[in-house]
Amino acid sequence: MAKKFIMAIDLGGTNLKCALLDNSLKIKAKSSFSTKSFDSKYKLIQGITDLLESLILNQRLKRSAILGVGIGVPGPVDTLKGIVHFLPNIPGWKEVGLKKILERKIKLPVFIDNDAKLMTLAEHELGAAKHYKNVLCLTLGTGVGGGLIINDSLYRGSDNAAGEAGHFPLNENGPLCGCGAHGCLETYVGNRKIIKAARELFGPKITLERVSALAKENNPKAIDFWSQVGGKLGLALSGIVNLLNLDLIVIGGGVSYAGPVLFESIRRTIILRAMRLQAKRVRVVKAKLGMDAGIIGAGYLVRERLKG
Amino acid sequence: MAKKFIMAIDLGGTNLKCALLDNSLKIKAKSSFSTKSFDSKYKLIQGITDLLESLILNQRLKRSAILGVGIGVPGPVDTLKGIVHFLPNIPGWKEVGLKKILERKIKLPVFIDNDAKLMTLAEHELGAAKHYKNVLCLTLGTGVGGGLIINDSLYRGSDNAAGEAGHFPLNENGPLCGCGAHGCLETYVGNRKIIKAARELFGPKITLERVSALAKENNPKAIDFWSQVGGKLGLALSGIVNLLNLDLIVIGGGVSYAGPVLFESIRRTIILRAMRLQAKRVRVVKAKLGMDAGIIGAGYLVRERLKG
Repeated sequence: MAKKFIMAIDLGGTNLKCALLDNSLKIKAKSSFSTKSFDSKYKLIQGITDLLESLILNQRLKRSAILGVGIGVPGPVDTLKGIVHFLPNIPGWKEVGLKKILERKIKLPVFIDNDAKLMTLAEHELGAAKHYKNVLCLTLGTGVGGGLIINDSLYRGSDNAAGEAGHFPLNENGPLCGCGAHGCLETYVGNRKIIKAARELFGPKITLERVSALAKENNPKAIDFWSQVGGKLGLALSGIVNLLNLDLIVIGGGVSYAGPVLFESIRRTIILRAMRLQAKRVRVVKAKLGMDAGIIGAGYLVRERLKG
Repeated sequence: MAKKFIMAIDLGGTNLKCALLDNSLKIKAKSSFSTKSFDSKYKLIQGITDLLESLILNQRLKRSAILGVGIGVPGPVDTLKGIVHFLPNIPGWKEVGLKKILERKIKLPVFIDNDAKLMTLAEHELGAAKHYKNVLCLTLGTGVGGGLIINDSLYRGSDNAAGEAGHFPLNENGPLCGCGAHGCLETYVGNRKIIKAARELFGPKITLERVSALAKENNPKAIDFWSQVGGKLGLALSGIVNLLNLDLIVIGGGVSYAGPVLFESIRRTIILRAMRLQAKRVRVVKAKLGMDAGIIGAGYLVRERLKG
């Protein structure tokens, strides 16, 4: 049997990643580009097409050796029809039939899903959530995304929109959120918000990586900073574990690299705030697949769709 | 074939209900007692036994015609082992092997589950949630309980403790809750809290039924009262539909009789606070089985357990 490959795209608000995976979801090649260099929807779609074509060329692949293309996008998606409803952090996308457009251009089967859902699938299939039954995967970046594993399967909800943990309300009259509500988790722990808070504490040149390094050196201001971020996350997660009685919470995305001080603060808050049975059960761990989770999930999506 | 019957008990913080159901879960006979008249765990267990025995006697039933006994209790339960972990509103219950104790006394198969989960099963099988796939059932009483239908099945979570919507945090520094956390939904809309608020507005003799009647007569203070209760419910439900992308929310328990003003306020808040896709999808309706939901659910539990 000829070797079969899968192509995967992870479209983020900041970076566009492209990879070639083998049939067991191992990454054979990957590349990354700034999303901003494609400044319109049409340029971005053409950019994705060019990336895929050049990957086929560079890797000397026959089209017949490629099972299909999986794409993760940062927003709500009709995954069966392959339509992107909208992308909160990339302007100009509204009800775009991305699957059809790309299949016509690239002449391969294309499957599309929300990026946090793909990260969740990847962590459950190959990462930190393997062998866990009821899981929330949280990605901490510009936005706060999430995906749910319920009874060992990805739970999509009635419109494939389940998992939006970033819009868990923490305070009735909290800061206004991009979604139109007040006090959403994202308004407290989204990247923009915490970078702003870090600058106020440590000066305009500080990076979150530096605050993490300071916390590891026992700098009290840095420890307090991450404890507060963990406290907000722990508060939302307490409400979620009360409701869902999960056995695992996986935390990924840039902020998950903050180190033990963040995870200890999350765990402490859950023990303090969540109900006894639920708090006792749930483990909180860092994502295992790191920045590749989205790509691996996109590959998994292709494999699953072609099976069924 | 001889006709088969099911016995059902709904143990509440206030009332103990007992009923005889036929195999299609229709109620043939029922009775209700004050829970407080059984002032210890042992008296309550003996009370349940006596109720069941007298029902058998009164209805001239042969034990061979009874499939089993289903019992709903207001607290977390290990439903497979039939152990009651604890009951927040009935003192003295801790890790009680109620199934075994009652089976020895009554010589019939006994099945136990949490009351909100049984209400949810009943509403999904025979009530307002029939034909809906992803549902939250909320019961508004002394406590605020809940149960989840996910992909057409009752979702139990990792310790059969899923569904605790009453302990959804609405404000980080809100009122202290019986569960030890702050600002839980129950601290805003639990019966004790809203009766207290009603008395402050309408005088010491007011009942919630009277406030509902006043709202129906367009009394502005009464309308404002229920709008505020609905606002708190809507806020928690917004977070829950963002996370779970449900197609239905069913509201039962005493407070659900408040009338349209309550439901309109809930719906308005969800449209204002929840994300667009999720808010557009979800319907909010009153429970259909009313105060019998717990009993019907207990009957359903027996039927399902004996099938499997």
